[in-house]
Amino acid sequence: MRSAGIVYLVGAGPGDPDLITVRGLRCLQQADVLVHDRLVAPELLDEAPSRALRIDVGKEAGNHRCAQEEINALLVRHAQAGRVVVRLKGGDPFVFGRGAEEALACAAAGVDWEVVPGVTSATSVPARAGIPVTHRGVATSFAVVTGHCLGDDRVDWEALARIDTLLILMGCRASARWRICSWRTAGRPRLRRR
Amino acid sequence: MRSAGIVYLVGAGPGDPDLITVRGLRCLQQADVLVHDRLVAPELLDEAPSRALRIDVGKEAGNHRCAQEEINALLVRHAQAGRVVVRLKGGDPFVFGRGAEEALACAAAGVDWEVVPGVTSATSVPARAGIPVTHRGVATSFAVVTGHCLGDDRVDWEALARIDTLLILMGCRASARWRICSWRTAGRPRLRRR
Repeated sequence: MRSAGIVYLVGAGPGDPDLITVRGLRCLQQADVLVHDRLVAPELLDEAPSRALRIDVGKEAGNHRCAQEEINALLVRHAQAGRVVVRLKGGDPFVFGRGAEEALACAAAGVDWEVVPGVTSATSVPARAGIPVTHRGVATSFAVVTGHCLGDDRVDWEALARIDTLLILMGCRASARWRICSWRTAGRPRLRRR
Repeated sequence: MRSAGIVYLVGAGPGDPDLITVRGLRCLQQADVLVHDRLVAPELLDEAPSRALRIDVGKEAGNHRCAQEEINALLVRHAQAGRVVVRLKGGDPFVFGRGAEEALACAAAGVDWEVVPGVTSATSVPARAGIPVTHRGVATSFAVVTGHCLGDDRVDWEALARIDTLLILMGCRASARWRICSWRTAGRPRLRRR
């Protein structure tokens, strides 16, 4: 039996519950507390022991059910009480998952933490559609950015447009607000508000 | 019992055998033929049934044990003989894995195939070292390229240098040949032969 608590930051993968890693599944199966997002498959929640406390901190864009600081405090509090805490996130915890902020909060509080990487949707969703992000003679590099950054001047869209394959995550909301007017290799893609 | 053969292109993940996906492991456990790379963990090879035919087509840079065309033909031949073929690759099959070439060969031969994404080393190796590829307020995008491309004029290093986080896979050999002399946000990184 473990006497000190720990926080496992686990990537659930792109949606299909079978695309979690073996290690991620094992962490889930020994969880005392399961802190999860909205996008995680229900089948995965069932993998935690029935006695485990399940906490939905799911976020929808623009409607954050639980602020990041509250989530950080939650993880730290349960781990400090000696519990095995699994923080289950869609995709990979360190790819736009704010997992690093949670890891920093654990480290600052002296709580053990471990990241269990997951299959990121950035490469696996196109793969499931038969589209490789790299292909010999066609694409030797790829870049990943979020749609939340559309219209953000700190993001170098001109450079991004010059990478062979560009993957925009969470772009639906942004694409409703912005229209890409021209997307030239030589110039900055122009955006116009719809 | 399956009468027609199939090729599963399975990502083994970044090295730790527990970082394969649950689906990838299940494919392995039903393999008639296991075609694997040099970098795949031995523990994973043991997961295939003992009766399964194991074929090492492992590649070392500059010393290709088996040409890509031979691998393609091997996959197609065994699947056409009605076997469940697992093509196990380090990382993710569609991230610099040449998995798409194998998928195309299967499709051209009328052989069923499926890609089972894996955890890519591009994001998971830094994660295991505690380094997130994205972090709120610090890095909102990342790009991935191979070190094999150093010195290749078709690769837009100037644009790559402007992405927040740049991940260079398989860069050791290249770094022995090339030296990055300056790496400025505003200019093309200059390379000099050592």
